[in-house]
Amino acid sequence: MAEAVKEGFPGTNDIGKSVDELTTPAFVVDLPKVEKNCATMLETCKKFGVQLRAQTKTHKTIEGSILQTGGTRRSIVTSTLDEAELFAKNHFDDILYGFPLIPHHLPRVFQLTKTLETFHVMVDSDVAVDTLSANSPPEGKKWSVFLKIDCGNKRAGVWWENKDAERLAVRIHGTPNTIFKGIYAHCGNSYSEPVTNARNNSIDRMLAVSERIVSSGVPCPTVGIGSTPSCRQPCPEMEKLTELHPGNYVFLDVQQSTLGSCTYDDIACSVATRVIGHYPHRNQMLIDCGFLGLSKQGWGCMRTGYGVFRGHPNLKLCAMTQEIGFVEPLEGSLDFAQFPINSLLHILPWHSCATAAMYPYYHVVNQGKVTATWKTTRGW
Amino acid sequence: MAEAVKEGFPGTNDIGKSVDELTTPAFVVDLPKVEKNCATMLETCKKFGVQLRAQTKTHKTIEGSILQTGGTRRSIVTSTLDEAELFAKNHFDDILYGFPLIPHHLPRVFQLTKTLETFHVMVDSDVAVDTLSANSPPEGKKWSVFLKIDCGNKRAGVWWENKDAERLAVRIHGTPNTIFKGIYAHCGNSYSEPVTNARNNSIDRMLAVSERIVSSGVPCPTVGIGSTPSCRQPCPEMEKLTELHPGNYVFLDVQQSTLGSCTYDDIACSVATRVIGHYPHRNQMLIDCGFLGLSKQGWGCMRTGYGVFRGHPNLKLCAMTQEIGFVEPLEGSLDFAQFPINSLLHILPWHSCATAAMYPYYHVVNQGKVTATWKTTRGW
Repeated sequence: MAEAVKEGFPGTNDIGKSVDELTTPAFVVDLPKVEKNCATMLETCKKFGVQLRAQTKTHKTIEGSILQTGGTRRSIVTSTLDEAELFAKNHFDDILYGFPLIPHHLPRVFQLTKTLETFHVMVDSDVAVDTLSANSPPEGKKWSVFLKIDCGNKRAGVWWENKDAERLAVRIHGTPNTIFKGIYAHCGNSYSEPVTNARNNSIDRMLAVSERIVSSGVPCPTVGIGSTPSCRQPCPEMEKLTELHPGNYVFLDVQQSTLGSCTYDDIACSVATRVIGHYPHRNQMLIDCGFLGLSKQGWGCMRTGYGVFRGHPNLKLCAMTQEIGFVEPLEGSLDFAQFPINSLLHILPWHSCATAAMYPYYHVVNQGKVTATWKTTRGW
Repeated sequence: MAEAVKEGFPGTNDIGKSVDELTTPAFVVDLPKVEKNCATMLETCKKFGVQLRAQTKTHKTIEGSILQTGGTRRSIVTSTLDEAELFAKNHFDDILYGFPLIPHHLPRVFQLTKTLETFHVMVDSDVAVDTLSANSPPEGKKWSVFLKIDCGNKRAGVWWENKDAERLAVRIHGTPNTIFKGIYAHCGNSYSEPVTNARNNSIDRMLAVSERIVSSGVPCPTVGIGSTPSCRQPCPEMEKLTELHPGNYVFLDVQQSTLGSCTYDDIACSVATRVIGHYPHRNQMLIDCGFLGLSKQGWGCMRTGYGVFRGHPNLKLCAMTQEIGFVEPLEGSLDFAQFPINSLLHILPWHSCATAAMYPYYHVVNQGKVTATWKTTRGW
């Protein structure tokens, strides 16, 4: 993985340090847990005979995507063109830009299609298909297109019952410069309704859409669903699909634990933070993790406020300003002697995608020592 | 300002473009408005005969801090050591690290004290004073120390009525290697109680603390308060202070408008975003600005959801996932023809500090054209 960290950046100086030497707040990644989470998902896909198309949006690192793909660097889906370009530069291929295509994307999509063996776009509208049909792909290439289907998530995608699905598939298939690659659904409703419902409905609905497309005379080689809750709680019917594309499973988080995806012990990331002050007259201490170190997601979802303090179930992160967190006990008086100024605490985040995005790099730790720093990409 | 952008980064390619050519989401800074906001604050300070110690945390850019200091590059306060180091490298001086000092900070504080003519730290505990007294400053230097006072904000600082204030001042003054620089209060309670109350109480309380310190035999050369709401609505009593240290005023935001700091027209930043899909069956459209483009702050504070769409008061940003925003009309049916796929919208953020922090650089615009890109720093 050396090529990923060719350029020096501040974090590389931390390799070899123990966690308690790090500047705080720090996003700490437990390498054995990430490796286990990635291996488990590859095994799930192998078991059901489907391809894992790993979503890279949670970590946005080369090293994380190498683990997600089991070292093949093949078959990923990204949330931004910026990620797709980073991975393309680092010898990844079979990359899907998993975001509704709009005309503005075309110059960068052209370049990625030219560079990679297989680069795919995602569409859910006639405007997007018009854009592709009106513009020539790079010489010797075709636009490779996934049709996004909405199976209950109510975000992007053609509603699964809507005949626009087969109509757009026919249009794409019939356009000389495009290849209809298949259908894709993000079962994000697994975060808001029972996971098994969202998962099973998504599978059934995608298979129904695929049948309608095939009945319209269009081959539908790829049928994929994804979300960490559904893929960490898989079912035999997944055999009928061809792809799964979860993303958060690399790190997991407190939210996933509430959805049955994992235990706290599976969560592969945490924020290291230090106690910066004692305020006994308010029964409160302050830490150096504010909303820039954790994000403000999760309020109202946990008894312990904005996060879970590992090993300290009585602590509540009850407020945050930009750089400061306010910590109070859920019950009783805070035992300040247990939390000296300068001492370290570890917060499990509610939503690791949101927390990871606040960091320019991660400290990757094995048995308490920093063994690597993973630089993330950001922007669009 | 050329030295600030010596190194190329992706955004520099955008100079000369019009806003509607930019990759979205983009953080767009209106240069004339930023210049006006910075000039207004310098005039306020001049009028009351106090020094502006500009807080740099909102934008974290060299260019923004040059405007805040009227080109002098003197007298700033930072929220992180990372910012302090960036500004120190770029010929700023008289820098205060405006965060409670803990022992872990010492090696970097030593280096900054050595490099700069005047670098200041902030303390509110005996632990911090112990740290300074137990460690020698760089040769020929002393540790320059502000005492943080809590005048009602209930975050860091010694509670203003607590005699620890004068006791710590006496300790600092009596330590051979330290200089007692004065007292500092962030009147952040101007965000949660009437601005004039928070402002007036902070002034009165700081003057009382200063008197007690002086009565204890310790000179107190600096007495400063700050927060954008109080400094955008200044009062003659500010003449009795020596410093003001607001920060958000550079950009302002919707929150500031609700506090009386500004009108929407004064807000110098916005997020440019594109329409990516129409979903008439849900009376909804999607945009390419999710929580990584705006942050999730502000929910419940605005009738229009997570932000205000400039020029479209009937639009509500009703939900966000990582990269997607969900837009609905407050009333009636969405006129999709008015918002074609690929067209641009502009969101005024609730909290510009939180939104700006999501971007690796800002697009600085004058009359619709990008005239500069300002690279931000991040991390700690």
